[in-house]
Amino acid sequence: MNDAILSYAQLNEFATEIFLKIGCPIDQAALAATSLLRADLRGIDSHGVARLSGYVRLWETKRVNSRPEIKIVHESPSTAVLDGDAGLGLVVAPKAMAIAIAKAKVAGTGWVAVKNSNHFGIAGHHAMMALPHDMIGMAMTNASPLVAPTFSIERLLGTNPIAIAIPAHEQPPFVADFATTTAANGKLEILQRKEHDAPIGWIQKKDGSPSSNPNELKDGGALIPLGSDREHGSHKGFCLGAWVDIFSAVLSGANYGPWVPPFVSFLAPPTDPVGEGIGHFFGAMRIDAFRPADEFKKHMDNWIARFRSAKTIEGVDKLIIPGDPENECETERMKNGIPLSEKVLLDLREVGAKFSTPL
Amino acid sequence: MNDAILSYAQLNEFATEIFLKIGCPIDQAALAATSLLRADLRGIDSHGVARLSGYVRLWETKRVNSRPEIKIVHESPSTAVLDGDAGLGLVVAPKAMAIAIAKAKVAGTGWVAVKNSNHFGIAGHHAMMALPHDMIGMAMTNASPLVAPTFSIERLLGTNPIAIAIPAHEQPPFVADFATTTAANGKLEILQRKEHDAPIGWIQKKDGSPSSNPNELKDGGALIPLGSDREHGSHKGFCLGAWVDIFSAVLSGANYGPWVPPFVSFLAPPTDPVGEGIGHFFGAMRIDAFRPADEFKKHMDNWIARFRSAKTIEGVDKLIIPGDPENECETERMKNGIPLSEKVLLDLREVGAKFSTPL
Repeated sequence: MNDAILSYAQLNEFATEIFLKIGCPIDQAALAATSLLRADLRGIDSHGVARLSGYVRLWETKRVNSRPEIKIVHESPSTAVLDGDAGLGLVVAPKAMAIAIAKAKVAGTGWVAVKNSNHFGIAGHHAMMALPHDMIGMAMTNASPLVAPTFSIERLLGTNPIAIAIPAHEQPPFVADFATTTAANGKLEILQRKEHDAPIGWIQKKDGSPSSNPNELKDGGALIPLGSDREHGSHKGFCLGAWVDIFSAVLSGANYGPWVPPFVSFLAPPTDPVGEGIGHFFGAMRIDAFRPADEFKKHMDNWIARFRSAKTIEGVDKLIIPGDPENECETERMKNGIPLSEKVLLDLREVGAKFSTPL
Repeated sequence: MNDAILSYAQLNEFATEIFLKIGCPIDQAALAATSLLRADLRGIDSHGVARLSGYVRLWETKRVNSRPEIKIVHESPSTAVLDGDAGLGLVVAPKAMAIAIAKAKVAGTGWVAVKNSNHFGIAGHHAMMALPHDMIGMAMTNASPLVAPTFSIERLLGTNPIAIAIPAHEQPPFVADFATTTAANGKLEILQRKEHDAPIGWIQKKDGSPSSNPNELKDGGALIPLGSDREHGSHKGFCLGAWVDIFSAVLSGANYGPWVPPFVSFLAPPTDPVGEGIGHFFGAMRIDAFRPADEFKKHMDNWIARFRSAKTIEGVDKLIIPGDPENECETERMKNGIPLSEKVLLDLREVGAKFSTPL
């Protein structure tokens, strides 16, 4: 099974065309394609073009509005709440982050909660928008319930990721971007395809007992918060997932907890919503609202260099700074192209055929 | 070994007296005692009066300044950096949080990074200061290096806790307060006293291999970030600890990573500091900078009630909402008193004797 390799430009153009065909205005189609492709560039293949057909299906079932009127519904000098009007999260999120950055220019920091949105791709992409402005960026989102809090056998939270992007001077930026579960759902999908077992601590059965079956969620099982079990701190992972849920949705007026609508179009949203759509939360902090940016970035260089040169366990070359593997992948794939599995390529061509857009 | 039980008022008065005797102005002595005792009230006994003698020893070795000039050295509408002038963190932290709250009143949110401080007790106490103002509170601090990042055999980070306090309407507030390691150092101390083994995944040996010896840190071992190992997401726990370190110290100008001075007075601080003292970071977000506070708090009631009533694994009565055990402990101990082990009581009486303050 050899992967096909397509250039970033070609895939970005294709995705833009598809978003245009479902009715997005040209600027929003371009924005959506760029948000989506950033996942492929950074090696998070589960969240990139592999999901393009999923977004199209959400539009077909009228759960995504391709011509949203995105507007601020509440604000203060350093905050805003944005109504995404059921638009693509891939469009709503960068617009929300741009508002956070604009607020930070004036007030020192900017914080934007978003309701009535949809899946936004990778959190890291949005957080990294702050970097060229010498700001720290943060992004988080809730997601459909796949995770059972500690002691629960019900799925009440999404994998609710957090991203934090921090600029340095000569070093590449520090970019943490992680699901608040032991393992992201994308990792489970890989095991399903390969028919491999999952490590104990990633998944529980419907009665809450440990499972190594990556298909367990189909039988009422659940993902587990970061920590794996109570003894190893899964209640802390629950705190993190809950935090993301509350900031993204209770602050904004979106659906939270078990009421978050599913990403897949074949599952209907709950009939008793507690808010509108899914929710996100973004932050931008101007470095020089705390200390001169040059001074900060030189200390970040020192921080990163010190950690990178730490003495490591036998067999490991060096410590991984958050963002390093993704930053390297991005440079490589921007230059040499993005590998697509046969399955994803066929799926894209099927979408393309539907809209007379060849790939 | 029966515990003695002393009233909150009696212990608070005693601690205030001791802080006065080391030279604190009266208002700061009262503030320090209240910060310290909050740990005992909330059942986090490792961080309460058991540490009073430790703070006194830091003052004796001139690492704590009992009459600090705490001042803002940099600010914007929503941010400030505070120089703690080597004061007690127990005093500097509530003053910083008060500034964050004041900023939030005007700008919607307030964010204060602190340098040149010392240990501040429990993070949750400071975060909870936001609650009566209908604000969300956040508090974090770095600490002396006891934790080895994933793949490292060097101790480069502290247990770097994060606290988030979120108000509800009829429900008690949501209060998460946790070390970003699998287990806090206080839990290790309990195992040491009881001569019990630690679960695998809490501690590593000096070569990075797993250990169940709670005394392993004395032989060059380290605590492990939340996640326990790479396969179960310890790199995410590393991201969290790094985030706390960078916000607390690189933003403020404090010492970070392996340069953070130790809490115990018998270990000398590094001779090549990269900043001043230890660092903290605080945030306050006015709820109604996002949506009407009543509306938010009613949805928080709904969030908490839904999670609390989740179906649980066999043998467990109900799901624990973050803050529940500590909130209940606080009510109970405020009413019935605070239990002290014989060892802690003797230690307090020794401190009292030194300053002619009987307990």
